[in-house]
Amino acid sequence: MAASHPTIGPRVLVMSRAILKMLRPPPGEFDYVCLDDHADRDRYLAEHGAGIAAIIAAGMERLDAARLAMLPDLQLIAVVAAGMAGIDLDAARARGIAVCNAGDINAGDVAEYAVTMMLAHRRDLMANDAYVRSGRWAEARLPPGHAVSAQRVGIVGLGHIGRNIAQRLHPFGCEIRWWGPNPKPVSWQRIESLEALADWATTLLVAVAGTDETRGLISADVLDRLGADGLIVNVSRGFVIDEPAMIAALRDGRLGGAALDVFDGEPIDGTGWVGVPNVLMAPHVAGATIESLAAVMQGALDNVRRHFAGEPLERRVV
Amino acid sequence: MAASHPTIGPRVLVMSRAILKMLRPPPGEFDYVCLDDHADRDRYLAEHGAGIAAIIAAGMERLDAARLAMLPDLQLIAVVAAGMAGIDLDAARARGIAVCNAGDINAGDVAEYAVTMMLAHRRDLMANDAYVRSGRWAEARLPPGHAVSAQRVGIVGLGHIGRNIAQRLHPFGCEIRWWGPNPKPVSWQRIESLEALADWATTLLVAVAGTDETRGLISADVLDRLGADGLIVNVSRGFVIDEPAMIAALRDGRLGGAALDVFDGEPIDGTGWVGVPNVLMAPHVAGATIESLAAVMQGALDNVRRHFAGEPLERRVV
Repeated sequence: MAASHPTIGPRVLVMSRAILKMLRPPPGEFDYVCLDDHADRDRYLAEHGAGIAAIIAAGMERLDAARLAMLPDLQLIAVVAAGMAGIDLDAARARGIAVCNAGDINAGDVAEYAVTMMLAHRRDLMANDAYVRSGRWAEARLPPGHAVSAQRVGIVGLGHIGRNIAQRLHPFGCEIRWWGPNPKPVSWQRIESLEALADWATTLLVAVAGTDETRGLISADVLDRLGADGLIVNVSRGFVIDEPAMIAALRDGRLGGAALDVFDGEPIDGTGWVGVPNVLMAPHVAGATIESLAAVMQGALDNVRRHFAGEPLERRVV
Repeated sequence: MAASHPTIGPRVLVMSRAILKMLRPPPGEFDYVCLDDHADRDRYLAEHGAGIAAIIAAGMERLDAARLAMLPDLQLIAVVAAGMAGIDLDAARARGIAVCNAGDINAGDVAEYAVTMMLAHRRDLMANDAYVRSGRWAEARLPPGHAVSAQRVGIVGLGHIGRNIAQRLHPFGCEIRWWGPNPKPVSWQRIESLEALADWATTLLVAVAGTDETRGLISADVLDRLGADGLIVNVSRGFVIDEPAMIAALRDGRLGGAALDVFDGEPIDGTGWVGVPNVLMAPHVAGATIESLAAVMQGALDNVRRHFAGEPLERRVV
């Protein structure tokens, strides 16, 4: 009996059914429980938090000091994304709780989607499709737009995603420059300020980490500098852009266009964007491909296994 | 008076108002006439063809042996595109009429759009946008699709456009192979037959020249080999694909998707595509950017000037 019913290992809390479904943890090794199975989540944590040794989270769920205090035995938070905006990392650090994330596992896919949105917006992909379907092609041709090769592309944040964007755009022949607070040993030219980058660029790709420091980074002023022919692409976090200012600038024609995978307060219901022109949207899917999700989930499972086997974690951030 | 009203040079026939508008020829140097200004084009050519020394054409207009016979003084046909399907090149050659085209002037832009369509189709760009607008994001997430990096990309025809496509796709990390009738000294691996390429590929990009030899090249058999998960992208000419077979395969789910900038019998009115699933369309705009059109038109004007100045033509094909 012992062989077929091995002792269940440490308890691992999975923060949502959505994650659990993709995680598909192997049976027997750990005692997986899912927070979504409990209507009153805080009450569940208060009553059953003791004994939870690890958490697998998407990074946006609330894991503040108050919640972490309900988990006295917590040793590890494994995040299946790059962002960790919901987690009080200082509180985790003070408690000696290790935190690891998805690092750059899906940076290639996020960059892929950022470039896809930029190309599609710049080359009028959706308008072209609608035009053929409208039957108006015989009457007139659509006015041409600018080639991507003629763009001046500014990348805000040259981390894993920013670098992957630059590498993919390079053979298109567009000029590429970037800004981030610190110089980096890369071949792409850094511009000394975000404002100067926005002045120079015709397309601005936002690929910074979403943190308290980057909240509102893309301000009304930055958007005005990008201007009436400018396109902003965001694959970072919604709150990095001053969203009301962006919507106003798009409505007024002071900003040329926006391609957004992320929004402030996801999921959005879309009503705030009705009638806002020249916007391409996606439901935060840039990094969510079959391949990336499988790799990210496996990465979290591997880190849980590593932790309880006493092995060093991969992509540890705290 | 001679200085302010110089003798008008040779007569140049521009085949359409659309070309003339983009051409913006400098005044005075040549006597430009536009075929669209004449309701009965053949009658105009029969009555006024003598004296026309050069033609500027889009390449698809009928310039067969019968029409060329109406132009006894014709010395040059300057085509503002890569394709010359409407021109009887053998008749031109027999008459000693020089023919030049746009060569690879817009190959980069065509490749840019081919890659844009492939990325957008593979990453469900339009469905993602519609999903956010539908307000259903809060209910559920869309199922993920495959990353472009996981694609096996087959390029049919590795001329200027095919090579530009391969160069742009390279940093996305997808496998790239190609087929064309003749091996070429390139780093991309050539597969021995179109059928084998279609068997191997998950995405097939068609970038061959549109000629009598390539008519129907992408047959029902090739499309079946590409299969239910396969995507076909066409930036060549519509007639290169067996279009009825492609529509049937898409309707039956035997072909996964199509992204088409070109169609048989352009402009189409779209009615043949109503209800055909997983199709992304564009009104033959892949090579038509502001930058390319300006370069292509200038290239034709320059060749007309070169010809009558006795200088060698650029991009001469006959």
